[in-house]
Amino acid sequence: MALYVQKYGGSSVADAKCMMNVAERIRRTRKAGHDVVVVVSAMGDATDDLIDLAKQVNPDPDPREMDVLLSTGEQVSIAILTMALHRLGVPAMSFTGPQAGIVAESIHLKGRIVDVKPQRIRAALDGGKVVIVAGFQGLDPAEDIVTLGRGGSDMTAVALAWALKADRCQFYKDVTGVFTSDPRVVPGARKLDEISYDEMLELASMGAAVLQSRAVEFAKAYGVTLEVLSSFEDKPGTLVKEEVKAMENIVVRGVAADKKQAKVTMLKVPDRPGIAAGIFNALAKANINVDMIVLNVSGQGQLADLSFTVPETDLKQTLAVLQAVVPEVSSTGVVHDNNIAKVSIVGVGMRSHSGIAARMFSTLAQNGIDIHMISTSEIKISVVIPKPQADEAVRVLHGEFRLEQEAAAAAAGAARPAARPAARRRPPPAGRGRR
Amino acid sequence: MALYVQKYGGSSVADAKCMMNVAERIRRTRKAGHDVVVVVSAMGDATDDLIDLAKQVNPDPDPREMDVLLSTGEQVSIAILTMALHRLGVPAMSFTGPQAGIVAESIHLKGRIVDVKPQRIRAALDGGKVVIVAGFQGLDPAEDIVTLGRGGSDMTAVALAWALKADRCQFYKDVTGVFTSDPRVVPGARKLDEISYDEMLELASMGAAVLQSRAVEFAKAYGVTLEVLSSFEDKPGTLVKEEVKAMENIVVRGVAADKKQAKVTMLKVPDRPGIAAGIFNALAKANINVDMIVLNVSGQGQLADLSFTVPETDLKQTLAVLQAVVPEVSSTGVVHDNNIAKVSIVGVGMRSHSGIAARMFSTLAQNGIDIHMISTSEIKISVVIPKPQADEAVRVLHGEFRLEQEAAAAAAGAARPAARPAARRRPPPAGRGRR
Repeated sequence: MALYVQKYGGSSVADAKCMMNVAERIRRTRKAGHDVVVVVSAMGDATDDLIDLAKQVNPDPDPREMDVLLSTGEQVSIAILTMALHRLGVPAMSFTGPQAGIVAESIHLKGRIVDVKPQRIRAALDGGKVVIVAGFQGLDPAEDIVTLGRGGSDMTAVALAWALKADRCQFYKDVTGVFTSDPRVVPGARKLDEISYDEMLELASMGAAVLQSRAVEFAKAYGVTLEVLSSFEDKPGTLVKEEVKAMENIVVRGVAADKKQAKVTMLKVPDRPGIAAGIFNALAKANINVDMIVLNVSGQGQLADLSFTVPETDLKQTLAVLQAVVPEVSSTGVVHDNNIAKVSIVGVGMRSHSGIAARMFSTLAQNGIDIHMISTSEIKISVVIPKPQADEAVRVLHGEFRLEQEAAAAAAGAARPAARPAARRRPPPAGRGRR
Repeated sequence: MALYVQKYGGSSVADAKCMMNVAERIRRTRKAGHDVVVVVSAMGDATDDLIDLAKQVNPDPDPREMDVLLSTGEQVSIAILTMALHRLGVPAMSFTGPQAGIVAESIHLKGRIVDVKPQRIRAALDGGKVVIVAGFQGLDPAEDIVTLGRGGSDMTAVALAWALKADRCQFYKDVTGVFTSDPRVVPGARKLDEISYDEMLELASMGAAVLQSRAVEFAKAYGVTLEVLSSFEDKPGTLVKEEVKAMENIVVRGVAADKKQAKVTMLKVPDRPGIAAGIFNALAKANINVDMIVLNVSGQGQLADLSFTVPETDLKQTLAVLQAVVPEVSSTGVVHDNNIAKVSIVGVGMRSHSGIAARMFSTLAQNGIDIHMISTSEIKISVVIPKPQADEAVRVLHGEFRLEQEAAAAAAGAARPAARPAARRRPPPAGRGRR
């Protein structure tokens, strides 16, 4: 008998009917002899509706009060799902985040879990109950409600799986798993059976937001095995776990595009110690997540352009912050471009294979795709290109690295840098789109 | 500087616009130099909507889970009202029932407040904040959410007023105060400036539900001064407080009808010790509130009919419970009548005035109104009559006891049992209807 933590997102619990489906799925897991702890999000548009209501009385609502308001969304979900399980004859009990022992830092709307005290959940499991926990929320030391920000429900699930030493933390989504690329863009995109934490992290951070980075980071740090699977189909999904040897045969695991970034350049920044820190501290204070950063100084004391990307939604605020910084750092000005996309290839095998970057750049060049920025990590290579060419870039790279093939074939393919044997190609998966 | 606890019901906080109105009213109280603690209900139909949602997944939802669900209604209200106050520049902070220190007995859906630990509220008041508390909810010793049942928000307000030693507990309603009778039925009905706890209790229990009995009982026991006033007009309301000497001049304070009762009779019940206890214990176990009870045994060991009234909504269940009891108590059967109304006159002055009952019965007889049951307390006389004659009965009794006149005039009138001097009659009040 295993213990599973299952997390269902908003679209899986959109209405009463969806709730009954989820309850049925939980009943089956339990019937197979397993203990189940379930983390749920707010139903469908509930969170957006609450935000709209708040804006009607105050365009700039207080974060503490927003947390009081927003946490009701998940609280409704846990009660309804528990009632649905009772209807199916499954003993179940609901817990709000505070009741579940989720202790969070006191940063409203962006709380971080600092501890889990799972005594009540343990007692309920020992009492033979399915436990339903409200995601996205916890209690701070002052006993105020704190929501956990974007991806907070995923965090709740992983933290509970850790605290309860669960065998697996399962994420039920409207997709069948993690794909080599977006199946809506690349017809040959293939569902992966497994992927390493690091690869998943790089995929999450580049916009293929199947799982939130925070949750994956936590799972990696504490060794929680994750699984991404469909709440609509009854099939194994994609396991996310620590890197294993066999994985190294696969050089590139996936290709993804993030079209929601904008590129910002500060012109002619002097090469003085602390300049970059000053700029990025100002942005951090404004809570802007800077992604790719490229600085290329030609020599000591020279002027250079400093470029980076930010989420498109933060562009306006970024420019406002930078206007204040421009004179301080003696820059000559700021330019921006939001008609860009970031395209990345990810794979732990890159660590031990050379020439991958060159192959990526050549492929893009051969297809007439201009590269504006390059940034690399040990297991990822990202390029910024014109947004209109993003889909094409993803398709040609997916083909170049033979991602439509199974692992063994791909490994063989990596050894033979040329021709793609047609016989080994697989039909496109029947699964749904990734997002 | 005084401390007011203000309670706003669902219709006063139906939507964002209403919330802004309530916020404005609170701002004015505060501007006058007072501290304010506000108790709010769920917005408009929020509670009904949540119940509907629950019924979609389970026709018979678990009470514990219903409490988790329903308590979100008030939680939304406190956040929104606090944001609305912030918008007006008023410092404010919200508290759920649990955060406000409302400790309740562990009876789901029907919790009773057993303690209030107002430390957090005190601290917020000391910090110069308006405190917004979710009504209708508390935490039981197991740290589960418990809702307080019908009238639960009124209870929260009175309990907080007591715990905080507030100067007054104000109930903002869609009426301007407590009236001598229902103004929709009696054109001459007059708003009362003050009324005793006992009178208010009798009025509440007979269906003129301006305030819930539980809240009034608590206020009486702990000496909390209440005020019923309009959330739409800026006028003094009706004070509810301990009886004062001057009150005794007023023999009858008000007349009310309750048309939502049904009469049930157990036929030929033997006069044996414990029989009545057996019957009413069975009903109490089924959570049925029995109101008037009339038993008239002609002699020791004789058979007699036992009649009582119950809320019409409980009639079906009452009959089911009684069917089981009929053989046990050797009754010959049960009959019922739901085409009845209970009409009552209430006034602390009855204690020291005789002949009031006779005057009531004569007035009804003179108007051709048949009396089915009579029941009296020290300050109330109730009769059960045919429902179609209820409004007429209220009107003729309101006239007989000269309730359209001011206190002094009414006292004089009571001394002179006949003719009503036209010169002393007042124009009908401009106020709104009572319910």
